[in-house]
Amino acid sequence: MIYETIVTTCSAQGEVHIAPFGVQWSDGKVVIAPYKPSATLQNILETGRAVLNLTDDVRIFAAAIAKRTPFATQEVAHGCVRLENCLTHHILKLDQVEEDAVRPRLTMTVEESVLHGPFMGFNRAQAAVIELAVLVSRLHMLPIEKINQEMEYLKIAIDKTAGERELEAWQWLVDTINNHIARESGLQQA
Amino acid sequence: MIYETIVTTCSAQGEVHIAPFGVQWSDGKVVIAPYKPSATLQNILETGRAVLNLTDDVRIFAAAIAKRTPFATQEVAHGCVRLENCLTHHILKLDQVEEDAVRPRLTMTVEESVLHGPFMGFNRAQAAVIELAVLVSRLHMLPIEKINQEMEYLKIAIDKTAGERELEAWQWLVDTINNHIARESGLQQA
Repeated sequence: MIYETIVTTCSAQGEVHIAPFGVQWSDGKVVIAPYKPSATLQNILETGRAVLNLTDDVRIFAAAIAKRTPFATQEVAHGCVRLENCLTHHILKLDQVEEDAVRPRLTMTVEESVLHGPFMGFNRAQAAVIELAVLVSRLHMLPIEKINQEMEYLKIAIDKTAGERELEAWQWLVDTINNHIARESGLQQA
Repeated sequence: MIYETIVTTCSAQGEVHIAPFGVQWSDGKVVIAPYKPSATLQNILETGRAVLNLTDDVRIFAAAIAKRTPFATQEVAHGCVRLENCLTHHILKLDQVEEDAVRPRLTMTVEESVLHGPFMGFNRAQAAVIELAVLVSRLHMLPIEKINQEMEYLKIAIDKTAGERELEAWQWLVDTINNHIARESGLQQA
C-alpha cells in the first residue's frame, strides 16, 4: 500500500529540500525508494534523517511538481525540518540501505511523531489534484490527447468539490500542462 | 468544499443508521442536505443529533453503497453512536433547518470532537474506491460503456497503490456493477 506524502530533508550544509514521495510502511518502519541521483537520496545518506509530512494541502504537491516556490518549513528535532502546513509529521532515521542502480530502497525508523491536526474526510478534488500531479510528472511520456482526456475527467471532481487550495493547485498543474502542450506544438512565444 | 464522510444517526427507538454523506463546513458548523425521505433526515429531526465520522477505511463507504453488512459502531455521548473504525468523530447538534422539497439543508453545531488516529497521507486507491462508489450510486443513470471505461481508468490506481482494505472495498463495488450489468443484459440467473 502506497501513501502519497511530502518528504523534507536537509543537506549537510542545512539546505532544505521538499519532495513528494510515495511511501510504504513495513513492520512499523517507512520504506522510500528515491531515484539516483536525487537531492532526497543524497541528503538522507549525508544526514541519516528525513521527515515524513502528511498533509492534505495539495498545493504542496502541485508546487513541487510544477516547480513553483516551495512551501514554508520549520525546524524540528535532530536538525530536521517539517512542513509548516501538515497534519502529522514523523522524524525518520535511516536504518538500512538496499542498494539498486536506479532506486535504492531506504528503510527508516520513526524517531518522533507529532500530530498537528485531524483528517477532515475524503475530498474528491484533492484526489483529482494528486492524479493530475502524477500525470504532470509523466508529461513527456504521454500523448497530448490522453493528457486532455484525463484532465477533462478529473475536472469533474474539481468543479463539484474543490475549495480554494484545490483550485489553486489545479491551476498550477494546468498551467504546466498548457506550457508543455504549447512547446510540443511549437507555438510557444519566447 | 465538500468532504466525503460517514454520518451515523439513531432513530428515537435507538436503531442505528450508517450513511455516506458529502458535507460542507460553514463558519465552524457542519451543513448536510439529506434527501427526503431518508433515515438520516428522519433520525436527525427526531433526535436533534448526528455523528460525523471521518474515516480512511473505504470499505465503510463501499459497504453502504453495495448494501453489505454495516460496520461496527460504538456508543458515545448524547445517546449517539460513532463508527468503531474512524480517525476522528464529531458529535453534531441540529441548529437550523432550511426547508426544501427535495433536500432540506441542516446546519449543525459541533458538540464534541474526538481524535482517534492520524492522517496517513493520500492513497490513490482509496480515492479510486470513493470515485467508484459515486459511480455505483448513479448506476441506473449511466450507459454500461461509460461504467466500464471509468472502472478501467480507476483500476490503475488500485493495481498500483491499494492495500487489503481497498482491494476488498473495490471488489464489493465491482460485484455490484457486474450484477447490474448482468441484469441490464437480461443474463442474470435466478
